[in-house]
Amino acid sequence: MVKTIDGKKVAAEVISECATELAELQARGIKPGLAVVLIGDDPASQVYVSSKVRKCAELGMHSEKIVLSKEATQEEVLKVVERLNHDDLIHGILVQSPPPPQIDEDAIIRAIDPSKDVDGFHPENVAKLALEDPTGFVACTPAGCMRLIEAAGVEANGAEVVVVGRSMIVGKPMALLLMARGADATVTVAHSRTKNLAEVCRRADILVAAVGRPEMITAEFVKDGATVIDVGINRVEDSSKAKGYRLCGDVAFDEVAAKCGQITPVPGGVGPMTIAMLIKNTIKAARLKS
Amino acid sequence: MVKTIDGKKVAAEVISECATELAELQARGIKPGLAVVLIGDDPASQVYVSSKVRKCAELGMHSEKIVLSKEATQEEVLKVVERLNHDDLIHGILVQSPPPPQIDEDAIIRAIDPSKDVDGFHPENVAKLALEDPTGFVACTPAGCMRLIEAAGVEANGAEVVVVGRSMIVGKPMALLLMARGADATVTVAHSRTKNLAEVCRRADILVAAVGRPEMITAEFVKDGATVIDVGINRVEDSSKAKGYRLCGDVAFDEVAAKCGQITPVPGGVGPMTIAMLIKNTIKAARLKS
Repeated sequence: MVKTIDGKKVAAEVISECATELAELQARGIKPGLAVVLIGDDPASQVYVSSKVRKCAELGMHSEKIVLSKEATQEEVLKVVERLNHDDLIHGILVQSPPPPQIDEDAIIRAIDPSKDVDGFHPENVAKLALEDPTGFVACTPAGCMRLIEAAGVEANGAEVVVVGRSMIVGKPMALLLMARGADATVTVAHSRTKNLAEVCRRADILVAAVGRPEMITAEFVKDGATVIDVGINRVEDSSKAKGYRLCGDVAFDEVAAKCGQITPVPGGVGPMTIAMLIKNTIKAARLKS
Repeated sequence: MVKTIDGKKVAAEVISECATELAELQARGIKPGLAVVLIGDDPASQVYVSSKVRKCAELGMHSEKIVLSKEATQEEVLKVVERLNHDDLIHGILVQSPPPPQIDEDAIIRAIDPSKDVDGFHPENVAKLALEDPTGFVACTPAGCMRLIEAAGVEANGAEVVVVGRSMIVGKPMALLLMARGADATVTVAHSRTKNLAEVCRRADILVAAVGRPEMITAEFVKDGATVIDVGINRVEDSSKAKGYRLCGDVAFDEVAAKCGQITPVPGGVGPMTIAMLIKNTIKAARLKS
């Protein structure tokens, strides 16, 4: 029996906690607001942005979707961010990634008021994560992974964790969260230059795959009974599908599931957690302002 | 034959590079300046501060030692920092740690202009380290350790490194430096909650000890031929010494030296690197301003 960690279920729990918090804030006259800025008309980004805004609306939060043309200039985007920084209705600002090539994404992120940076990418929030300052915002994907590990009933304290991937979006923040006081895991960050990667991964009680390479983590990378968190969402050509592709993670699900203790599926694992953690961060931002 | 990594020699090499850089900057009319702020009269801090200022003077840099009484208030220290932030003669500012108990050290660090934060403790520089932005300042002790590893001729790329200790002063920045692109080590951060610590440490091709516990890293923690970097400087009672104590590292030197490939002694290993990297950071600060 494969024991999957149900990301939809855990995300629904987080959303339910958010609803309770929102009711409490509403009673105090506080209505958290999220602004999502989309530059251009990338279909995948449109879907992501719409679902974020819709979820806010469902929960009775204020939300705005601001769509700029794909020819928008850096100055135009910065002006929008600046306006949102000073807008009291807005507690969280997210600029959907990736922007068109003429936009300097790092400069946009630095322009967001750190206290409204619910994506957790502003340097001030990166530093707070490293410094274990709880007033910062943690990037939604690693925060969601932490919640999944907790929901799976797996003890991180003293566990050996291997994070495969060292990006600033997932790998590094994940490692920093897991090694922090309170989580107390023994964390190894592995990557493309790691020798004997399979052997290193086999040490892991908890294995986090965030490499963006379809199904590269096979059974030989996984210790019997380990907990496997698959952050990858990859499209793989598949002529048997109507769309011509299927979605898969960084983990070869079937063979790993037969060996590990628990595993997140793709889709339905880490993915659903992202919006839930975004909502949670936006509520936190509103609370810190109040 | 013990192969020690001679911190004094490597520090002298760094200082010699600094002298060359200083001559070049001088030819362009630039004189890097360091201000060291000492609050109170702690004898060890006085020694550290004086040696920093003296080294600057020897190299023909501008340097200032600013001594405040141990009763100085937070506001007084902030005013001094603010003045130094706006002083064009000063490119680097360091407030000697630890300050007296009435001082909020984090707030002081945050008040230092990040472009003058040659200690590398300001959140903006912590973030730049995590984000692999080379315009930041790296804390002097981990930067010195990196230089010692390089000087030892040990290849970090693909090596297994275990960092024991997760402080923001040494352990975490050390781990971030070693896992960054270019260094490319496979890094594990171990700490007091790590199970089977000796076993985890024995995996290391390069072992960095930064726990602050005298001689806790014994031979059983070390793989044959490993490179050992000992960051600890501990005082241990020793009635056979005139001072009543001796200095030792976190590593049990004699038994580990008999087993490992190379090792930094205490004193004379990591210690001498700190001032050298501080001078290097101050020159970098002046260069970035010019």
